[in-house]
Amino acid sequence: MDCKIRSSTCIAPINIAVIKYWGKSDEEQIIPLNDSISITLDTDYMFTKTTATISPEFTQDSIVLNNEQGSGDGVRFQNCLSEVRKLAASSKHASTVEKSTWKVAIVSENNFPTKAGLASSASGYACLVFTLAQLYELESHQSELSALARRGSGSACRSLFGGFVRWFHDSQPCIARPIAEAEHWPELRCLVAVVSNTSKSVGSTEGMRRSAETSKLLEHRVKHVVRDRIEDMKMAILEKNFVKFAEITMQDSNQFHAICLDTYPPLFYMNSTSQAIIQLVHRYNQIRQSVKVAYTFDAGPNAVLFLEQGEISRFASVFYSVFGSTPHDKFFRGKVPDLVDPTEDVASLVPEKALKGQVQYTIVCNVGQGPKNIDPTG
Amino acid sequence: MDCKIRSSTCIAPINIAVIKYWGKSDEEQIIPLNDSISITLDTDYMFTKTTATISPEFTQDSIVLNNEQGSGDGVRFQNCLSEVRKLAASSKHASTVEKSTWKVAIVSENNFPTKAGLASSASGYACLVFTLAQLYELESHQSELSALARRGSGSACRSLFGGFVRWFHDSQPCIARPIAEAEHWPELRCLVAVVSNTSKSVGSTEGMRRSAETSKLLEHRVKHVVRDRIEDMKMAILEKNFVKFAEITMQDSNQFHAICLDTYPPLFYMNSTSQAIIQLVHRYNQIRQSVKVAYTFDAGPNAVLFLEQGEISRFASVFYSVFGSTPHDKFFRGKVPDLVDPTEDVASLVPEKALKGQVQYTIVCNVGQGPKNIDPTG
Repeated sequence: MDCKIRSSTCIAPINIAVIKYWGKSDEEQIIPLNDSISITLDTDYMFTKTTATISPEFTQDSIVLNNEQGSGDGVRFQNCLSEVRKLAASSKHASTVEKSTWKVAIVSENNFPTKAGLASSASGYACLVFTLAQLYELESHQSELSALARRGSGSACRSLFGGFVRWFHDSQPCIARPIAEAEHWPELRCLVAVVSNTSKSVGSTEGMRRSAETSKLLEHRVKHVVRDRIEDMKMAILEKNFVKFAEITMQDSNQFHAICLDTYPPLFYMNSTSQAIIQLVHRYNQIRQSVKVAYTFDAGPNAVLFLEQGEISRFASVFYSVFGSTPHDKFFRGKVPDLVDPTEDVASLVPEKALKGQVQYTIVCNVGQGPKNIDPTG
Repeated sequence: MDCKIRSSTCIAPINIAVIKYWGKSDEEQIIPLNDSISITLDTDYMFTKTTATISPEFTQDSIVLNNEQGSGDGVRFQNCLSEVRKLAASSKHASTVEKSTWKVAIVSENNFPTKAGLASSASGYACLVFTLAQLYELESHQSELSALARRGSGSACRSLFGGFVRWFHDSQPCIARPIAEAEHWPELRCLVAVVSNTSKSVGSTEGMRRSAETSKLLEHRVKHVVRDRIEDMKMAILEKNFVKFAEITMQDSNQFHAICLDTYPPLFYMNSTSQAIIQLVHRYNQIRQSVKVAYTFDAGPNAVLFLEQGEISRFASVFYSVFGSTPHDKFFRGKVPDLVDPTEDVASLVPEKALKGQVQYTIVCNVGQGPKNIDPTG
């Protein structure tokens, strides 16, 4: 190998927690107070793409994030980078050890608008760590990579795996592992509804700290509620029991936001549109006389809805009719669903007026795979 | 006494809980899961007025509520009435025993719009029980009367007393008792902000039942949080420590709404205007570099704000500037405050736009007395 420059380009998925992570027991190491479970979404529409280049000719590390020259996000980026290098430096391959001393140039971008409030840090750090691992030939160190991604952004440790993923708060090292592969539940669909008029709110690092310090309910959640829910959710996923899966997902999302409200001063991440979506889902399930749709909300007003393929035309038609104001092929992105006449359902639902236009657009996804190398020669 | 007709007219105040009542251990008896503490508001602007008339000539009980012939609110009204009669029948005064057999005609009205979502059942049942007690000369049975009002509407047991009142969940009988008289803290003021565009939500009886059945956090609140808060709140009141009083009031309001959100399906009582009021209060306290204002919300979007007299002109001016759209002497009712120029404060607060008109009007009260007889001869 004479040409002393190496480059790799990879993409990584976002993941949506169905049992929420909120609160750390160790801020510096990013150790969560409780286990969480997430679903990895396919990368057809949303992903982070990262190119990492290393060369002994480079005189300094550099990073370009979403077309802006950056400082590499400060401490967390540096933590990630130096930990990957440490792992490379301890390799038994001389070439990996050598490369660990070279400077690196990172170019990373999200193909979804970060301003829409879709968490980009999970896919971002997962992609960074995965891409560097390709360069240093560390792919086999899956556990270590999950732990390294965690140091960048807690939930990034889950985005290193496809399918259904559990992040253990007390494993050594603290890592995520798959519960089931993406192919396990092929009928499952996910709608990511991007809500209009989101206002800036308290960031999740600061929010978690404030909850851990002031909520009188968080400790009870962590110690007495989540443990059972994790086991129940795991069973629901393994059994593909949609009703059980949906109920726990909704209950845990609501409890996370309840903890935010019990924080002092309180944290509001959901807005009136989020409330309207929750109420629509419960009313829809009521008229369907079964739990057909579930919602979950992270630290922002956007809704993530889960349902099975058989329900998607009917529900998407109702959802679009109530919240959409653009043509349906602009409103839906990704796997645009066929729509049916929603008149009867909407009449039974009697949604509040003035909801039209409250959802900007909705991305339709399947459960997806973990990060992958997209080098032409890769 | 030959003229065999007796009549009495009384008024009763509303009360605002600062440690919330949510959830019953006995639905039929209306025994709460935890103690609560409330403040009785003066009756200058808001009260229930009830006239009760008894006569051996009447052939049946009758009730007119807010100018509508009613069934007497069914079971609860009948419970109250028959319990008061039982108490009268056990009197050692022959005249009281005789009167307990006569039929009664009740005319009751609230002088505040019940549709505004201001709880009318507490003042209503307190007034009913108090007025009947006047007729039957049972005024000295204060404890029994509190317990009887409770059978009509739980929090009515607190409206039988002025000032600062604690409702005990485990006393025998289950009653409220004053912590301090209204005169104890003469500087305390209360703003009741009636929010526009309130939508119908789940009633509190049904809501409490649902929370008790489904919230995984309510039991922890009841057993481990409220007990300390009750003692801390009592001390804050006795010491007139406004900062402590305000912090606990806000934290307990938020925790009550957190429990509502942890209920399945979730209960939403606050709306986006309520959120905006909460955020304004926290920002106002921040620029004042001290806790000068507290908020609390019951099972609806209306805000109740507490502050001391010295702060009222400044805060009311800011509040009106942000949320008001009618002339200030229409916006404020009751003890209309003098306003000052809020420009500088509002500039520091940078409130969200589009809040003007979100509060319909605001009633300004003092801490007040319990029910009273207003018979001309009374």
